Amino acid sequence: MPPAGELQQSSPSKDKPPTDAQSAEAAAAIAAAAADAEAAGLWTQIKAEARRDAEAEPALASYLYSTILSHSSLERSISFHLGNKLCSSTLLSTLLYDLFLNTFTSDPSLRNATVADLRAARVRDPACISFSHCLLNYKGFLAIQAHRISHKLWTQTRKPLALALHSRISEVFAVDIHPAAKIGKGILLDHATGVVIGETAVIGNNVSILHHVTLGGTGKACGDRHPKIGDGCLIGAGATILGNVKIGCGAKVGAGSVVLIDIPPRATAVGNPARLVGGKERPTIHDEECPGESMDHTSFISEWSDYII
Amino acid sequence: MPPAGELQQSSPSKDKPPTDAQSAEAAAAIAAAAADAEAAGLWTQIKAEARRDAEAEPALASYLYSTILSHSSLERSISFHLGNKLCSSTLLSTLLYDLFLNTFTSDPSLRNATVADLRAARVRDPACISFSHCLLNYKGFLAIQAHRISHKLWTQTRKPLALALHSRISEVFAVDIHPAAKIGKGILLDHATGVVIGETAVIGNNVSILHHVTLGGTGKACGDRHPKIGDGCLIGAGATILGNVKIGCGAKVGAGSVVLIDIPPRATAVGNPARLVGGKERPTIHDEECPGESMDHTSFISEWSDYII
Amino acid sequence: MPPAGELQQSSPSKDKPPTDAQSAEAAAAIAAAAADAEAAGLWTQIKAEARRDAEAEPALASYLYSTILSHSSLERSISFHLGNKLCSSTLLSTLLYDLFLNTFTSDPSLRNATVADLRAARVRDPACISFSHCLLNYKGFLAIQAHRISHKLWTQTRKPLALALHSRISEVFAVDIHPAAKIGKGILLDHATGVVIGETAVIGNNVSILHHVTLGGTGKACGDRHPKIGDGCLIGAGATILGNVKIGCGAKVGAGSVVLIDIPPRATAVGNPARLVGGKERPTIHDEECPGESMDHTSFISEWSDYII
Amino acid sequence: MPPAGELQQSSPSKDKPPTDAQSAEAAAAIAAAAADAEAAGLWTQIKAEARRDAEAEPALASYLYSTILSHSSLERSISFHLGNKLCSSTLLSTLLYDLFLNTFTSDPSLRNATVADLRAARVRDPACISFSHCLLNYKGFLAIQAHRISHKLWTQTRKPLALALHSRISEVFAVDIHPAAKIGKGILLDHATGVVIGETAVIGNNVSILHHVTLGGTGKACGDRHPKIGDGCLIGAGATILGNVKIGCGAKVGAGSVVLIDIPPRATAVGNPARLVGGKERPTIHDEECPGESMDHTSFISEWSDYII
Amino acid sequence: MPPAGELQQSSPSKDKPPTDAQSAEAAAAIAAAAADAEAAGLWTQIKAEARRDAEAEPALASYLYSTILSHSSLERSISFHLGNKLCSSTLLSTLLYDLFLNTFTSDPSLRNATVADLRAARVRDPACISFSHCLLNYKGFLAIQAHRISHKLWTQTRKPLALALHSRISEVFAVDIHPAAKIGKGILLDHATGVVIGETAVIGNNVSILHHVTLGGTGKACGDRHPKIGDGCLIGAGATILGNVKIGCGAKVGAGSVVLIDIPPRATAVGNPARLVGGKERPTIHDEECPGESMDHTSFISEWSDYII
Amino acid sequence: MPPAGELQQSSPSKDKPPTDAQSAEAAAAIAAAAADAEAAGLWTQIKAEARRDAEAEPALASYLYSTILSHSSLERSISFHLGNKLCSSTLLSTLLYDLFLNTFTSDPSLRNATVADLRAARVRDPACISFSHCLLNYKGFLAIQAHRISHKLWTQTRKPLALALHSRISEVFAVDIHPAAKIGKGILLDHATGVVIGETAVIGNNVSILHHVTLGGTGKACGDRHPKIGDGCLIGAGATILGNVKIGCGAKVGAGSVVLIDIPPRATAVGNPARLVGGKERPTIHDEECPGESMDHTSFISEWSDYII
Repeated sequence: MPPAGELQQSSPSKDKPPTDAQSAEAAAAIAAAAADAEAAGLWTQIKAEARRDAEAEPALASYLYSTILSHSSLERSISFHLGNKLCSSTLLSTLLYDLFLNTFTSDPSLRNATVADLRAARVRDPACISFSHCLLNYKGFLAIQAHRISHKLWTQTRKPLALALHSRISEVFAVDIHPAAKIGKGILLDHATGVVIGETAVIGNNVSILHHVTLGGTGKACGDRHPKIGDGCLIGAGATILGNVKIGCGAKVGAGSVVLIDIPPRATAVGNPARLVGGKERPTIHDEECPGESMDHTSFISEWSDYII
Repeated sequence: MPPAGELQQSSPSKDKPPTDAQSAEAAAAIAAAAADAEAAGLWTQIKAEARRDAEAEPALASYLYSTILSHSSLERSISFHLGNKLCSSTLLSTLLYDLFLNTFTSDPSLRNATVADLRAARVRDPACISFSHCLLNYKGFLAIQAHRISHKLWTQTRKPLALALHSRISEVFAVDIHPAAKIGKGILLDHATGVVIGETAVIGNNVSILHHVTLGGTGKACGDRHPKIGDGCLIGAGATILGNVKIGCGAKVGAGSVVLIDIPPRATAVGNPARLVGGKERPTIHDEECPGESMDHTSFISEWSDYII
Repeated sequence: MPPAGELQQSSPSKDKPPTDAQSAEAAAAIAAAAADAEAAGLWTQIKAEARRDAEAEPALASYLYSTILSHSSLERSISFHLGNKLCSSTLLSTLLYDLFLNTFTSDPSLRNATVADLRAARVRDPACISFSHCLLNYKGFLAIQAHRISHKLWTQTRKPLALALHSRISEVFAVDIHPAAKIGKGILLDHATGVVIGETAVIGNNVSILHHVTLGGTGKACGDRHPKIGDGCLIGAGATILGNVKIGCGAKVGAGSVVLIDIPPRATAVGNPARLVGGKERPTIHDEECPGESMDHTSFISEWSDYII
Repeated sequence: MPPAGELQQSSPSKDKPPTDAQSAEAAAAIAAAAADAEAAGLWTQIKAEARRDAEAEPALASYLYSTILSHSSLERSISFHLGNKLCSSTLLSTLLYDLFLNTFTSDPSLRNATVADLRAARVRDPACISFSHCLLNYKGFLAIQAHRISHKLWTQTRKPLALALHSRISEVFAVDIHPAAKIGKGILLDHATGVVIGETAVIGNNVSILHHVTLGGTGKACGDRHPKIGDGCLIGAGATILGNVKIGCGAKVGAGSVVLIDIPPRATAVGNPARLVGGKERPTIHDEECPGESMDHTSFISEWSDYII
Repeated sequence: MPPAGELQQSSPSKDKPPTDAQSAEAAAAIAAAAADAEAAGLWTQIKAEARRDAEAEPALASYLYSTILSHSSLERSISFHLGNKLCSSTLLSTLLYDLFLNTFTSDPSLRNATVADLRAARVRDPACISFSHCLLNYKGFLAIQAHRISHKLWTQTRKPLALALHSRISEVFAVDIHPAAKIGKGILLDHATGVVIGETAVIGNNVSILHHVTLGGTGKACGDRHPKIGDGCLIGAGATILGNVKIGCGAKVGAGSVVLIDIPPRATAVGNPARLVGGKERPTIHDEECPGESMDHTSFISEWSDYII
Repeated sequence: MPPAGELQQSSPSKDKPPTDAQSAEAAAAIAAAAADAEAAGLWTQIKAEARRDAEAEPALASYLYSTILSHSSLERSISFHLGNKLCSSTLLSTLLYDLFLNTFTSDPSLRNATVADLRAARVRDPACISFSHCLLNYKGFLAIQAHRISHKLWTQTRKPLALALHSRISEVFAVDIHPAAKIGKGILLDHATGVVIGETAVIGNNVSILHHVTLGGTGKACGDRHPKIGDGCLIGAGATILGNVKIGCGAKVGAGSVVLIDIPPRATAVGNPARLVGGKERPTIHDEECPGESMDHTSFISEWSDYII
């Protein structure tokens, strides 16, 4: 976990509501400045981590300099890294780098979401030993950053480009997120292989999704046909959620579950077919506000498992 | 969905049975000409789509010209595209391009199957906005086309080459189809990540298979040990079908099911372990002739799910 | 299956226990010499296979010469092959080749484990037609060899390099094994796509693991939180085993199972949630000493499945 | 030759001297605006040429879109094209693209010199059929543009980077220009192979230099030791000019000459060792103000040759 | 030197003139069949050489299989080899391979010229130890083959493509031959670095040209402005021939000469400026019919050199 | 120039002759140890230079780490750098790296020659600002190191491999040195473009050769037909030396000269055709023992030039 000090330093200005005397513009400017400061602080820390690793491991130094230490900002570093990962012989890295950097520059909220995702991985995943480790090596993290760019292109009606990017993300990271899907901030795609998220899916903030999770559709009819995942949810490995169902804020879905019904906030669904812990009529409502952050994968399944067998 | 007109225009000659006066050769020639005409028409449409996209999106124009617009036929375009995707530093793109193009040229039925697969994706997947989108970006579609070539090589007893190709398909698309597996036409591998299809598996025509589906074997014994999937089946995401079992024509398998038994035609199996909807003795037989085309993923699971819990 | 003769030739010296008169060092030297001889014999056979294939298939000869026939040892061949597969524009093949070869050279046990894995694939997988086929084309085999190198680096406290390698293995092979995970010899990762093995997982010898298997953690707490798999286990496709549970030697886990409890040696767990065949109190103990080798994937599920429904 | 109209349109504002009432800043701003307008006009023409060629030649369309038609400015197009040409496995194209684009952006005079060089090639070389042809295909043109960037880096005391770039230019284009060399505008390096220009060389404006020309030093002593080439000179193929000698404005040097002495303005030197046409004491002064533009390579040699033999 | 037998075997049918009774078409067919037979024989020999080398040198076997032994014809081998050498990140190898192979197929005279060039290198260059050595390694040979394709494209009014190819040849081989230049058969470009051949140059059959040779123009005027080189000429290293001058059949030009005048057949020109050996009025006419084949580089210069000094 | 101290430190042991009491083996061992120490010292200095540059220039740090700072010895660094420069799609970098490193390891005299060449460039070329600059950027230096490896292969009768390497050196560096040519130590190929050195050429120690120099043959006859260059010679830019002539130790050849006669030691030849300064009968013998080191390119030509005109 990162030193608490850094997290707290950036908190006050971020959270302080605007007074009457301040216009909304001023508040927005303050928030933007705070976000810039937070991103700058995080970038400084990432460079320090990379410098330490480069000194300790000469075999990796070239990699760390080219991906992190030669860049002047987090956006440039990610644009470079993603451009090199997603390029192909017919989609050149220079073209992608340019596209990614321009998109990041045109919309600062992308960068802010990146920062939130980095913090999410660092705090929630005990195997994440540094921010730079996540930035360079987590294919779930990289897939989401690339998705946000493809989503931005999609909303600008640059659909063929968004879909070409979508295709490369699916090939390179084995993560298939339709460019139209709406995804919040502070997302952790842990391990990430095999995640499929459909066109009309919506995911809130601070959600954690394990590998092999499907947020799938109902068939060949058009329209709103994919799940809506509330803030703070935790979706276990291999869970399959199909159709335009609502997974309430703070709900948990157990590993391997097949879910086709709404799940109330802070309820828990487990099994194939999924059943609500506590029963359909009076489901148990757990205490955790944000299981997506606490990441308890197993205790709830294990209780239920004992109960059933 | 493509304009109905195009589909109909090509139908008459394709479907008209040979009169007595016509020899079987003549009928075959007419069918071949009809297939050629259909492929040519589709190729014209794909080029028109690509030209429109290239004009609207200069950043993608180079990609569209190299993959589609510079080629004189569908076979050349796919051979080029697959050659560039499947090549590696030790298996050069020029070698693969040559191999693919020669194989397509030697057996026109491969091209006809490609045409049927393109139509399948366009009609069944609401997220598929154009034929060119499928051709360029659908890794399930690309994996099947490459598989058909590896299968052709396998039947020509060029097994080591077929297996090297198989390995590249599995690495690049995360789709693992043994070269010996027999696969029909009009197949949709939707999302496709993680699909595994074993050596003695057989899949009929007009089948739709979602991601993470396994058509697996029974163990280390040799022989016929993988599933047989009838025409028109729909296999949901994450379904695992093991052993030399028969999935009858028009059957449905629910997402996440584990199937080890035969499923009667137009029956539905759901759950882990899978049970037949309606019960083992008198399973419900649904009305849909071809669920692989209608693609209703969820209604049947949801009914069953309500029933069980 | 390879000719029995070869297997037997290498057995006597390997299995003969040291006499009193021999010091432990002498025994170790004899064992090392026997392992060297076995590896040399296997390498000779691999080259013979590759030479035969190169002669039969000119289109593949260049590939076979560059990956196998131009090398003087199994270690060099694998280092070359993995270096070319795992390299990227920022992690060059020459750097990886050098790193892999040095690691193999520094620790002969790595090479011995490779030999055991090759034999495991050849004996257990009926689709494996030759050792060279496994060496070149099995991404599960290649992922494990690369993992063993990353694990070695991890134990040498070269963690950032180990994690960079881990990341490339996950991207290229869709196999995600944390560098700290401890894995035995004679391992078969069949098909391999989507396998996830966490940081504190331990896997014994002669284990077979199918695709989409997860050996996952319990949440965000640090510490020992992943499964321990005993010798000779067989883990079916899509099985999810979560938490620091013990899967006893020779146990079987059915396809699609979700396991959160210990499984006794030679017992069988099936279903979501997983139940022990024979019941929690008196689970059935099967006869097979090493299901990981016999690879019976389905009979046990099918019995249980019949029983349940 | 390009339509005269375009050249004239941009002339007035460029050439009109500032009146008393205008400050120098205003004049500079007007000149900058004129240069911007000229570059924009040229870029429009280049895109029109590329579009025409892409339509006529589908096999080249991908190339033309990626190098020209997908870019929004001449600077971006050249940065992309040079980045792809000069990159290597250890100097990535994305890094070079970024470096080149930033350098162009930081100093508009680089772009103006590029414009002048494009016009020089188009007007002087009868084999140059379009501006886009020069931009894409003339290695002499490309080498000079890359040199200007390396020169800029050199003056910013980024010497190691300038020298690394120098090395790549020499390898890729076989044109070896030391980063410290000062080169004017409107330069044509025709054919360009084998040109060598040393550290303290200075070249004026509107100079034409053929292939295999050396502007070399005197030995291992440091200091000002390379030729100074005046405005408008023409240096024939294979000429070798050594030492800190002055080649006067408008002078001509014959093909294959070896020059170690100053040449007066508008004089002509020919032969090995070079002699002044007309004799050392009273060299003939020709009428051409700018042989670098008129490009008469041979008449003067041929006269002299007749005279000598 | 190759066994004389092979050369003689193919001679009779090639040289025998058609009798009255034979139509021109029949004669052409016979000549074509003879050329095919000669090419087939040469290709057989090249493959035998490559097979021998691959067996003796495993480190080179992969290279030899991919470039020669995996191909079914000389044209395919060269198209593959050139495609890989001339490709770039924006001009893909598959595109070039396809273009080259189609061009070879459309005009058999290209293949025949290739055969003649291979024989020329093998017979004239004592450092050429085999046909395969020339085919793979002689950049002069490769540059001419690529030029012939660009020339063919030029004559088909595919000028932008021809010029793009021209540019790549100049960058990769440092050989700059304008696509419009007409070049005969049996050409040897020895060493080849720095050769420049202008737009309206014409070169006859059986000519040998050393490195750094320029066949240059007269200036910026359009029109016929480059040298015409007769059959059998020998042009020494670094010779510069400028303007629309005629170098008569069988003439020799000494190394380092600068030639601006016509040279009579079988005469010799040497020096800077070049003078005719024997004097302008009565030049010495040597006995050699084809100095381009006998390749005597030096004796004539040395005599003249002694004479002059 | 490097600090004199370093050069002197390594001199004593290198130059001290063995006493009677020492066997030749001991002397050789001492010389080898001294050479190792000198190489180690130089390598330490190169790493220090690279580290300084990496700190000052982040954009170059990745390049410097991958080429120099991640390697444990000069031989590894050069093998890596050359492997990446000379590789192609059919000759992989890993293969070349392995080949180069093994060759360096098998013959320490190669490394010693490399050290001498690095010192030669550093001392003689005023544009050479550091050893690392030469190591990374001087294509003449790199071409010679690669030639020494190809020469070693040639002497081991691995001729096809030597020639394939020769071909790549000529393409990549535009330096064409036949693998059979024998080249001493302390060689500077300044600028290097266009240098051609034939099969039976021999070059002594401490020679400096400028760009475009040809050491060519006499024609198509086999046998000893190329120049022999004595120790300490200086060959000016564009000089052409043809035939089996002897250039005596310490001789100078002026830029652009064409030499077909022996040149006595410490004599000077200039012009086309070359004449001896001082006349054929009594050539001037200059004072410089080693013009290859003093590198006075021009004074001698200029005197002669004045004299002639």
